Amino acid sequence: MFPDFDYAGRIDRVKEVMTARGLDALLLSVGADLPYFTGYEAMPLERLTMLVVPAGGPVTLVVPRLEAPRVTDRGAFAIRAWEETEDPVAIVAGLIGGAGRVALGDTTWSTFLLALQGALPEARFEDASPLTRELRIRKSSDEIAYLREAAAATDRVVSRLGDVRFSGMTEKALAGLVKEMTIEEGHDTAEFASVGSGPNAASPHHEPTDRDIERGDVVVIDFGGRRRGYCSDTTRTFSVGEPEPEVAEAYAVLESAQREARRTVAPGVAAAAVDAAARSVIDAAGHGDRFIHRTGHGIGLEVHEHPYLVEGNDDPLEAGMTFSVEPGIYVADHWGLRIEDIVACTAAGVDELNDSDRRLRVVG
Amino acid sequence: MFPDFDYAGRIDRVKEVMTARGLDALLLSVGADLPYFTGYEAMPLERLTMLVVPAGGPVTLVVPRLEAPRVTDRGAFAIRAWEETEDPVAIVAGLIGGAGRVALGDTTWSTFLLALQGALPEARFEDASPLTRELRIRKSSDEIAYLREAAAATDRVVSRLGDVRFSGMTEKALAGLVKEMTIEEGHDTAEFASVGSGPNAASPHHEPTDRDIERGDVVVIDFGGRRRGYCSDTTRTFSVGEPEPEVAEAYAVLESAQREARRTVAPGVAAAAVDAAARSVIDAAGHGDRFIHRTGHGIGLEVHEHPYLVEGNDDPLEAGMTFSVEPGIYVADHWGLRIEDIVACTAAGVDELNDSDRRLRVVG
Repeated sequence: MFPDFDYAGRIDRVKEVMTARGLDALLLSVGADLPYFTGYEAMPLERLTMLVVPAGGPVTLVVPRLEAPRVTDRGAFAIRAWEETEDPVAIVAGLIGGAGRVALGDTTWSTFLLALQGALPEARFEDASPLTRELRIRKSSDEIAYLREAAAATDRVVSRLGDVRFSGMTEKALAGLVKEMTIEEGHDTAEFASVGSGPNAASPHHEPTDRDIERGDVVVIDFGGRRRGYCSDTTRTFSVGEPEPEVAEAYAVLESAQREARRTVAPGVAAAAVDAAARSVIDAAGHGDRFIHRTGHGIGLEVHEHPYLVEGNDDPLEAGMTFSVEPGIYVADHWGLRIEDIVACTAAGVDELNDSDRRLRVVG
Repeated sequence: MFPDFDYAGRIDRVKEVMTARGLDALLLSVGADLPYFTGYEAMPLERLTMLVVPAGGPVTLVVPRLEAPRVTDRGAFAIRAWEETEDPVAIVAGLIGGAGRVALGDTTWSTFLLALQGALPEARFEDASPLTRELRIRKSSDEIAYLREAAAATDRVVSRLGDVRFSGMTEKALAGLVKEMTIEEGHDTAEFASVGSGPNAASPHHEPTDRDIERGDVVVIDFGGRRRGYCSDTTRTFSVGEPEPEVAEAYAVLESAQREARRTVAPGVAAAAVDAAARSVIDAAGHGDRFIHRTGHGIGLEVHEHPYLVEGNDDPLEAGMTFSVEPGIYVADHWGLRIEDIVACTAAGVDELNDSDRRLRVVG
C-alpha cells in the first residue's frame, strides 16, 4: 500500500536526531510512525509488532511469525519473527538493553508500555511524537502529491453528491454511498463517512443512524479514506430544498470565516492565528458560542496529526505542513454547518489541495 | 449500535470486583471495555475519551465536547465534556485523586498512560483486562445470540461464495465482494477480508493484492465484521479447479484436526487442550511444522479476546466462553489451508455458531 520511499534514509535521519537529543532507543508499534520508517503497518491486534531502533545499533522489526510474510524486506532492518509461545516484550527488552531514554510510539497499547516498564525498570519512557514529528510534520513534494491525489478524489465525490437525491435516504444509506464513491474515485479504503442530517448535523462527529433525510434538512457530510497510505478528509454541507434564511445567513458567515482562515496560512504565521482568523469572523457575526471546536488538524499518514490549529498552539507554520481548515457553526438539536478543506503551507502561502465548490449546495 | 444491556448493573458489578481485589479506580478509553460498560465506543483519535470508575464513587465519562452529542445518556454515569483548550488528563487525574491502584484499559494509547503517570506519580497502574475479563469472558445468552446471528451472516456469505467464479478476479476485487456480501447479509460493518491466493495463501494474515486468481490456486478467505457491536470471524478454503493430490490430502488432515478440536470443547477442559487436539492430528500426519499459529482466540465485542487457545494456557474452559477454532497448514511460497469456526462452550459441550460447509469447495 505504501509508496516506495527511502525508508533506510529516514531511519538514518531519525537516528541522527535521537543522538542529538540524547535518546537511546525508539520503539514503534501500531500507528503511523512505523509505516513512515518501514512502509509496514502493524495489525492492531494483541500480538505485538514493534520496530526497535537503538540510536547506535542495528534496527529490528519484532513481528508475530504468522505476520512475518506480510513484511516487505527492503534491507533497512532485520526481522525477528516470534513464535506463539515466546514473549515479544522480553525480545524487545533484550534488543534495547537496560537503562536509558526510550521514545515509544504514542498510540502503542498501554498494556505493552506497562510490560516494557516491568521488563526495563531502569528505562525512562517518553512519547515518540516530539521526535518523529521532527521528520513527519513537513511533507516532501512526493508526500504532498499523494495528499493532493487523495483530496482530488474526495472533490470528485463531492461533485457527484450534488446530483444525488438525499430525501428519502437514511443517513446510513447515504454514508454507505459516500464510502462506495470514495473507493470508486480511487481510494484504497474509505475510512469514515459521518452523515448528520437535521438536528444530527449539530453533532460534529455524528455516527450515521437510520434517520430518514427529509426536505428542510441541512446535511453535513464529513468523509475520507486512504490512498497509498495518505489520508483525505473533507466536509461539505447540503440543504435538502432551499435553506431557511437563518441557515443561509449563518452559512455565508461560515464561508467567509473558512476563506479568511485559508488566506491566513503562510510560513511563520502561528497555528493559532489560523484558528483566530476563522473565529473572529464567526464571533463578529454573533455565532461565537456555536463554533465549538478547533479550526483544524494536520494530515498525512494519520487523519489527525500535528500541527493542530487551536488556541494556544503558537508554533509557526512552515512550508510543507499540510492540515485541514474546518470551522463550523452548530445549534444544538436544530442544525449544523461545516466546511472542511485540506491545504498545504508553501513558501508562497496557501496551496489548496481540495477545491470543490464550497457553496451550500441545494439537493433534492 | 450496541444493544440496550443493563449497563448500570455491569458497572455495579465491576465495582464489587474492584473492591474485592483492592483496586481504587478503573479507567477505560478506546477498545471494547468501554462499550461493555456504557454502550459507547471512544473514537480512536488524539482527543481523550475516558470513563473514570472509582471503586467507591460516582462514575464519569470524560469526553471531548464535540463528541458529547454522540453519547447516549442512560443514567449510569455523569458526562464531563472538555473544551479544546482544557487538559483532559488533568480532569481524569482530578476525578481519581492521588495514590492507589488504578486499572487501565489495555488498548489505551501509551501517550495517555505516560501523561497519567506524570499527573499521578503515586498511583500504580496495571492492565484492566484481568479485572474486566472476569465479567466479559463468559457471555450471557443474549450475547451468544448476537454472536450467533453474526456467525450465521458469515455462513450465508460462504454459501454464496461457492457460486462465484474466482478465476480472473484479483484478490482485492474478491475481498471487496466479500465485504459487500458481509454488509448485505446483515453486518453493520465489514471489518476485514483477507483473501490469499496461490502462494499468498501461505501468509495467514495476508493483505489482498492485485494478483489475479487463476486455475490451480488454493484460496484462503478469512473475513468478518460487526453486528450490534459483536464480531464475526470465519475462514474457508477454496480450490480453483480440482486440487492437487497433495493439497487434497493435507486438507483431509486439516478437516479432521479442526473437527477433533471442536469435539474437545467442554467445561473444565484446558484451553491448551483444544490446541493440542488439533496439533496432534496434524503432527501425526507429518505436517506439524506447517501449523505455525495457535488454534484459536476468544471473540465477543473484540475480534480477538480471551480465552486464547494456545500451548501454555491451562485455564479451564467454562460455559459461556466463545472462541474460534482455526487450525491451518501452510507451505511457504506454495499454498495454505485454514478452516475457522466460532463456537460457544456450553454445559453440554460445544455449540457451533458457524455451520457452513467445511469441505474444500471447488470453484471456477
